[in-house]
Amino acid sequence: MDEPALRQLLDDVRTGAVGPDDAVARLRRLPFVDLGFARVDHHRALRQRAGEAVYAPGKTPEHCARIVAELLAEPAGSPVLLTRADPTQVAAALEASPGGEVTAPGRLATVCWRPAPRRTGRVVVITAGTADLPVAEECTAVLRAFGFAPALIADCGVAGVHRILASIDDVADADAVVVVAGMEGALASLVAGITGAPVVAVPVSTGYGAALEGVTALLAMHASCAAGLSVVGIDNGFGAACAVNRMLP
Amino acid sequence: MDEPALRQLLDDVRTGAVGPDDAVARLRRLPFVDLGFARVDHHRALRQRAGEAVYAPGKTPEHCARIVAELLAEPAGSPVLLTRADPTQVAAALEASPGGEVTAPGRLATVCWRPAPRRTGRVVVITAGTADLPVAEECTAVLRAFGFAPALIADCGVAGVHRILASIDDVADADAVVVVAGMEGALASLVAGITGAPVVAVPVSTGYGAALEGVTALLAMHASCAAGLSVVGIDNGFGAACAVNRMLP
Amino acid sequence: MDEPALRQLLDDVRTGAVGPDDAVARLRRLPFVDLGFARVDHHRALRQRAGEAVYAPGKTPEHCARIVAELLAEPAGSPVLLTRADPTQVAAALEASPGGEVTAPGRLATVCWRPAPRRTGRVVVITAGTADLPVAEECTAVLRAFGFAPALIADCGVAGVHRILASIDDVADADAVVVVAGMEGALASLVAGITGAPVVAVPVSTGYGAALEGVTALLAMHASCAAGLSVVGIDNGFGAACAVNRMLP
Amino acid sequence: MDEPALRQLLDDVRTGAVGPDDAVARLRRLPFVDLGFARVDHHRALRQRAGEAVYAPGKTPEHCARIVAELLAEPAGSPVLLTRADPTQVAAALEASPGGEVTAPGRLATVCWRPAPRRTGRVVVITAGTADLPVAEECTAVLRAFGFAPALIADCGVAGVHRILASIDDVADADAVVVVAGMEGALASLVAGITGAPVVAVPVSTGYGAALEGVTALLAMHASCAAGLSVVGIDNGFGAACAVNRMLP
Amino acid sequence: MDEPALRQLLDDVRTGAVGPDDAVARLRRLPFVDLGFARVDHHRALRQRAGEAVYAPGKTPEHCARIVAELLAEPAGSPVLLTRADPTQVAAALEASPGGEVTAPGRLATVCWRPAPRRTGRVVVITAGTADLPVAEECTAVLRAFGFAPALIADCGVAGVHRILASIDDVADADAVVVVAGMEGALASLVAGITGAPVVAVPVSTGYGAALEGVTALLAMHASCAAGLSVVGIDNGFGAACAVNRMLP
Amino acid sequence: MDEPALRQLLDDVRTGAVGPDDAVARLRRLPFVDLGFARVDHHRALRQRAGEAVYAPGKTPEHCARIVAELLAEPAGSPVLLTRADPTQVAAALEASPGGEVTAPGRLATVCWRPAPRRTGRVVVITAGTADLPVAEECTAVLRAFGFAPALIADCGVAGVHRILASIDDVADADAVVVVAGMEGALASLVAGITGAPVVAVPVSTGYGAALEGVTALLAMHASCAAGLSVVGIDNGFGAACAVNRMLP
Amino acid sequence: MDEPALRQLLDDVRTGAVGPDDAVARLRRLPFVDLGFARVDHHRALRQRAGEAVYAPGKTPEHCARIVAELLAEPAGSPVLLTRADPTQVAAALEASPGGEVTAPGRLATVCWRPAPRRTGRVVVITAGTADLPVAEECTAVLRAFGFAPALIADCGVAGVHRILASIDDVADADAVVVVAGMEGALASLVAGITGAPVVAVPVSTGYGAALEGVTALLAMHASCAAGLSVVGIDNGFGAACAVNRMLP
Amino acid sequence: MDEPALRQLLDDVRTGAVGPDDAVARLRRLPFVDLGFARVDHHRALRQRAGEAVYAPGKTPEHCARIVAELLAEPAGSPVLLTRADPTQVAAALEASPGGEVTAPGRLATVCWRPAPRRTGRVVVITAGTADLPVAEECTAVLRAFGFAPALIADCGVAGVHRILASIDDVADADAVVVVAGMEGALASLVAGITGAPVVAVPVSTGYGAALEGVTALLAMHASCAAGLSVVGIDNGFGAACAVNRMLP
Repeated sequence: MDEPALRQLLDDVRTGAVGPDDAVARLRRLPFVDLGFARVDHHRALRQRAGEAVYAPGKTPEHCARIVAELLAEPAGSPVLLTRADPTQVAAALEASPGGEVTAPGRLATVCWRPAPRRTGRVVVITAGTADLPVAEECTAVLRAFGFAPALIADCGVAGVHRILASIDDVADADAVVVVAGMEGALASLVAGITGAPVVAVPVSTGYGAALEGVTALLAMHASCAAGLSVVGIDNGFGAACAVNRMLP
Repeated sequence: MDEPALRQLLDDVRTGAVGPDDAVARLRRLPFVDLGFARVDHHRALRQRAGEAVYAPGKTPEHCARIVAELLAEPAGSPVLLTRADPTQVAAALEASPGGEVTAPGRLATVCWRPAPRRTGRVVVITAGTADLPVAEECTAVLRAFGFAPALIADCGVAGVHRILASIDDVADADAVVVVAGMEGALASLVAGITGAPVVAVPVSTGYGAALEGVTALLAMHASCAAGLSVVGIDNGFGAACAVNRMLP
Repeated sequence: MDEPALRQLLDDVRTGAVGPDDAVARLRRLPFVDLGFARVDHHRALRQRAGEAVYAPGKTPEHCARIVAELLAEPAGSPVLLTRADPTQVAAALEASPGGEVTAPGRLATVCWRPAPRRTGRVVVITAGTADLPVAEECTAVLRAFGFAPALIADCGVAGVHRILASIDDVADADAVVVVAGMEGALASLVAGITGAPVVAVPVSTGYGAALEGVTALLAMHASCAAGLSVVGIDNGFGAACAVNRMLP
Repeated sequence: MDEPALRQLLDDVRTGAVGPDDAVARLRRLPFVDLGFARVDHHRALRQRAGEAVYAPGKTPEHCARIVAELLAEPAGSPVLLTRADPTQVAAALEASPGGEVTAPGRLATVCWRPAPRRTGRVVVITAGTADLPVAEECTAVLRAFGFAPALIADCGVAGVHRILASIDDVADADAVVVVAGMEGALASLVAGITGAPVVAVPVSTGYGAALEGVTALLAMHASCAAGLSVVGIDNGFGAACAVNRMLP
Repeated sequence: MDEPALRQLLDDVRTGAVGPDDAVARLRRLPFVDLGFARVDHHRALRQRAGEAVYAPGKTPEHCARIVAELLAEPAGSPVLLTRADPTQVAAALEASPGGEVTAPGRLATVCWRPAPRRTGRVVVITAGTADLPVAEECTAVLRAFGFAPALIADCGVAGVHRILASIDDVADADAVVVVAGMEGALASLVAGITGAPVVAVPVSTGYGAALEGVTALLAMHASCAAGLSVVGIDNGFGAACAVNRMLP
Repeated sequence: MDEPALRQLLDDVRTGAVGPDDAVARLRRLPFVDLGFARVDHHRALRQRAGEAVYAPGKTPEHCARIVAELLAEPAGSPVLLTRADPTQVAAALEASPGGEVTAPGRLATVCWRPAPRRTGRVVVITAGTADLPVAEECTAVLRAFGFAPALIADCGVAGVHRILASIDDVADADAVVVVAGMEGALASLVAGITGAPVVAVPVSTGYGAALEGVTALLAMHASCAAGLSVVGIDNGFGAACAVNRMLP
Repeated sequence: MDEPALRQLLDDVRTGAVGPDDAVARLRRLPFVDLGFARVDHHRALRQRAGEAVYAPGKTPEHCARIVAELLAEPAGSPVLLTRADPTQVAAALEASPGGEVTAPGRLATVCWRPAPRRTGRVVVITAGTADLPVAEECTAVLRAFGFAPALIADCGVAGVHRILASIDDVADADAVVVVAGMEGALASLVAGITGAPVVAVPVSTGYGAALEGVTALLAMHASCAAGLSVVGIDNGFGAACAVNRMLP
Repeated sequence: MDEPALRQLLDDVRTGAVGPDDAVARLRRLPFVDLGFARVDHHRALRQRAGEAVYAPGKTPEHCARIVAELLAEPAGSPVLLTRADPTQVAAALEASPGGEVTAPGRLATVCWRPAPRRTGRVVVITAGTADLPVAEECTAVLRAFGFAPALIADCGVAGVHRILASIDDVADADAVVVVAGMEGALASLVAGITGAPVVAVPVSTGYGAALEGVTALLAMHASCAAGLSVVGIDNGFGAACAVNRMLP
């Protein structure tokens, strides 16, 4: 119920077409559909410039399928995403709602229905190592769903600093940059120093021992000496894509 | 040394105006001035769309004064900032370089010389409580230095959720939102749910006990159920302003 | 041995029906039965207004079965619960003591024998996401065993704040509210702000990365800006139900 | 703006006494007063059964004084509390709003204006050691503001278990019990085992070394083997009182 | 109230000298004196083979003085200790109860009244460095109060392993050994390897950075490869002395 | 090489029976046998009053078998233990060295060859819950190997405090007490308060969520309000038995 | 592109053989080969005195095989290593590039192609226990690839301090020492005290409970009382070998 | 007592000049002087290629003075250092032992007596920011004491990567490099990638919030993607100098 609808309701009250009790009730009715196990939010796209994403872990295949179907039932809709889905969740959702495109970073898939039309912003996704690719690929899959055509530059860790310097033009000219890095996460600081574009850092749980399953990279990115870097959660390639989506027209 | 200068150098080499040995030496010479205790970076503004900021803690008043003066010596320059400065650092810097504007969140001041011209992006800075104001004010001071005219909405913690809902239009219409919140940091999730603009969350070290000096808010913001939220370091109002500066034209 | 029994014993001593040595011995004999591997507490219900619950993990199926049977042997008893039981533990306990009702949140079951009569307190259990349902369902199963008829409102995370606002009447009118939330746990703060009823928060180990297996939600709930929120352990739906049981008549 | 006021507004719209634009504006106007640095919430008492408390740390004395005065300006009001105030904050608030009663646990005072009428619930506050007294006294000060007459039983740590057993009747007969304990926090588990009343545990930052400034007690209380214990934040005597306030009529 | 007293009470009940109601009341009365702010435990020495120690931090000088005096009022008593007392606490306690012996490790004193008679057990206290001396001296002061004549061997850290090897006979022949070590705490493992006596390790909060205020030493001592080492809390020289007191005749 | 052997060597040097070079070499030769992958220590029993224990995890079955056999080759030897062995390690060791007695707490076995003769010290091992039994049983198995006949009292957690009080005589009369407790570990503090014997606490990794795999219990035991408690590592029933072995004659 | 090549390029520009645009482009071209998923660094050996190592985890067998092959394509190359490879990765790499030597510490193999010629530095690798052997063997495998012939001394934990003292000559005469130790990591401090050679400490994730998967050993090594010890990451036998490789000629 | 002395002793035994009992006693006497509060190690320089350093914190000025004097009493000695000394400690030591050279990084001084003769190794110390200078200066002071003439390159953080690239020749040609960096510590990874020399990283406790007082930098350096980096403790400039001292001739 957005502002015009609110005005309409009040006009109806003024003209007597709607009684006060009904109006109170309607003002309580908000734009979601309650499936019992989930409250599907049809207006999130309007509020947040994105579609609704269904985070699969912890949901039954049936839950996944029903929520996706409910979201696609909205006629003029925005992209619908199912993220981190295992094969049975993917299968159930695709059977109920054919036509989704599946991207599988590592063992967990991202499925996209109804991708957004092509947008012009240049987005670059950079990884520090090849082990960061699954998270980067979740990010690029979501960016494509939102209409972007992201470039992926892999394996540019600072221990071989010339590798990222070789791509300095791509980085400097980007409209937004996502840096995906595990271990010590140093690449994010360096990239933020060579571009004026927004830089979103994604700590990754690769590495072992002192990498502390991504906590070290997360802390390091937050303690970065580079100004204006912002960070999303560990392994959250999806979140980084959503952050970029908010930043670019 | 940017790309045109590089082309000029190579032309000079081609024409013999510069010999190879000199060219090698010049290619090594990069655009900073080495003061011995600091390497002042005159091209950061070009690379990162911002001015150079001098982080005062750990520097002597003399160091602060000399670095600021060096940065202002660049003729057609961008804003110069001295952040988290104590009174003796502020005094030394202003004596050497008069004309800076001082903002004092809590006990530590931000000083700005040569602020950028006014920009049109609408930035809203929201705090969860009044104790978050010093960090928020560091953020607005830096935003003003960068040419923005940020709105500050204070004391909207989720325990009285109607307070933020009352400002829902301002939040929804913003081009970027900064949420400054200590304790459990929940406000950031809520705000990201009611706007499509980029949301930068700043965890604050207010609170006591389980707030763990901001670590709880930082973790909570990263574990947020709201998609596309990005986070800067604890108490880093400066960093949030720089992140916004990268995002908006 | 409660106070009346103590008085009786002392009367018996006074009349000579019991000698001092026997009395000393009896005073040492407390109201439990020692099975060797467990000391089954028959008077817990009297002391704590609840029945005894058998926490299954780490016990053999035989241990589970014998403890449940021992508890049910008390004639006029209160509810008996077996919690977090795997299928072999459930089977062993039901074979020895038929008639238990099985609730299975996720893979681990709660079994209830001899549920309490219906009580009138209105209890609402709210989850932030669908992945919090198993913990919420453990909580509602235990509440039902204690005689309540809890309402379950799922998927009200603060990123879509209108979803909880739509249920604001149910929350405001409740006699007690349980908030089950993983990730950043922000929902508990918001709910505590819209009701005067006791609010018990349950941090959940859902989420990944910075959610730190529920520690982030636990800390955030403790750092909450909402006054009068109290918190139970991570994933402890059972404990939340017991806390509510103590609060309501 | 509660439900009757909403109905009135809609009636006014229906009769034309209020135009739709005004109605939209009013619906946005929520029951707080914006002082610029704070949004004072006049309806919190209605929503949460308590008064508004002003948490002093991080506020200027003037801020404290103005917020307290604003809250007292509400005519038929509930208790107003200023917590953790230093002497200059107390003085400023009392000068602007005379008549507050000051309680000073340790160095930081609680000030109460307009205490609630006497309520009948029996509340017992127990400490493990004498060093826990300041937190316990903050708790009893707030309980008295809410109309209770709490009993305080000090120094009952489990290392001398007979000390708490000697007060077993008081604990067993209470309507609510608050356990305030630092170090290992074991007292909370024991107390929860001897009463059926709600038990609110407050971890305290006393002790040194492995007490980790209250984190150990907080974790131990959450890992408690006693069912139905709930916990508030470290040193949060205020929060424990608010939790009890929610639980009792 | 020990077992003979209990038998007497029951005899009195049997003979009618004490009525049941009085008996119930007396059984509740346990052997402590309630000063309001403290429950002074006169029977701890009987139960635990030691005297009562008053831990000064968080207590007023008056509290310290009154509790010490109460403990000394017990005629045939065991040692009374005031630990970690600041000068005003020491002065207040000595004024009320003259004759205490003061030991001052670092800035905080241990005061002992009524030391125990000399015992024969050979106790050796070893430190890794000179910075560990204050904790070691708290330990030796308490050991002397309990009747021991401990030997103190200082500065035997493993980086100069011959220093501890030079004292190998003293260590091997001891009846109990206390190892006081900060930093990495390695000395405890080594000492436990060269003696069959009980070894009590005390982690110390000396060192900086990665020493994490004693947590590193505590963890290292618990992860020790030496079997049969036991550990007390960080900086807890008092606790180590009490542990030894329990172990030796 | 103990002191008599050293004297003999020096006598041999004095008489010329051994040349200086040989003596230097022999002084370097210490009482272990180097198997390449392990240095088997034949004199540990003499130094530490115990036998050598072989910690199985990380060793191949062959390694286990060879080290055990080497230890048993010492003729007049002390107990030999293989701890935390999986079935293939047990089988290999028993095939090479028949006659070991196997105790299997949980899935990992303790095997004992050549147990020590019966000793008189009364040792009591207490658990807080039934889930602590595997660690307690590792402890009692090792105690039996060392010649003790420990009593095991299970399921005495403080939430039902009368259960431990019922065994108060056994605890008070013991020569040493081991408390095995997970979750919040509060039982150790209570037990240390009712006995003057040495109390060794073993934190256990049972429980979930805030129990943090035993870290909460470990911290709580170290922050204990009971004086003279000492603690061994998480789940280290073996270590507790070794500590007791050092304490008793 | 090293300095001579840069001079050549500039000469070519000077002579007109290369145009400025081409020169700019070439200056960007740096010495790696981009395989899409990896940027293979052919000049690392020149820069870092070592070969390139391929860290297998997170890479597909095909990725491993292609990167190894690319590195071996460089004609006059240095050693090529594949580390922590599972059997399918090993097989794929060996099929594409026969002739590698496989070392298998635990379940994960190190494969070496084209080992360096023999170097003279004496390197000693010491372990505290047999469970540290897999990490030590990764270290010795990499050292052999770099041309060293390391000595391995196993099972010298400080609980039997004579075991390391027996090898004191080997340690004192070494050119570099690597200490591999889990649990409390104390051996590193002791070794650093008996040699003047560089000592590289490797914390190992063996042990359980308070060993915290190697974090305790890492912290302890950093808090060491021995001066000049340096530390590599948990379980990082590879890194220790690389550190030694940098230190010795 | 080194090997020649040992041979002499044994010869004396052989010739009867020394009796066995005396020899046993002498073998126990090791090369330190016991001052009671400290065991001063005169042979550390021989064993570890360095002098003895006296770590001042926790020692009285008198202790500092006496230990320094004792060390200087050794005639043909190596450097003697007093580190982290406050002004009264410095004054006491210089009064007792004139001639020490004082270096004062921040507020805590390093004092050096009897510096070693000049050595040829080229050592470069690099800092990420100016706030890292005190730790770097402690490092260079100790390096100078050991005979080196270290170069100090300040303020090369990766956010302005060209600043370190400008010094690439100095770094590549060094014999050892020390990287001193707080915040995220990324500089160490980058430097290790551009030199084959040993790189010792020193995490620094500068920064705030997520820098966690140096723990973030320490973890990041250990999780580094650069091979062969080794790390010393937080703020341990002294330790880094000692590590370099071990590595170079």
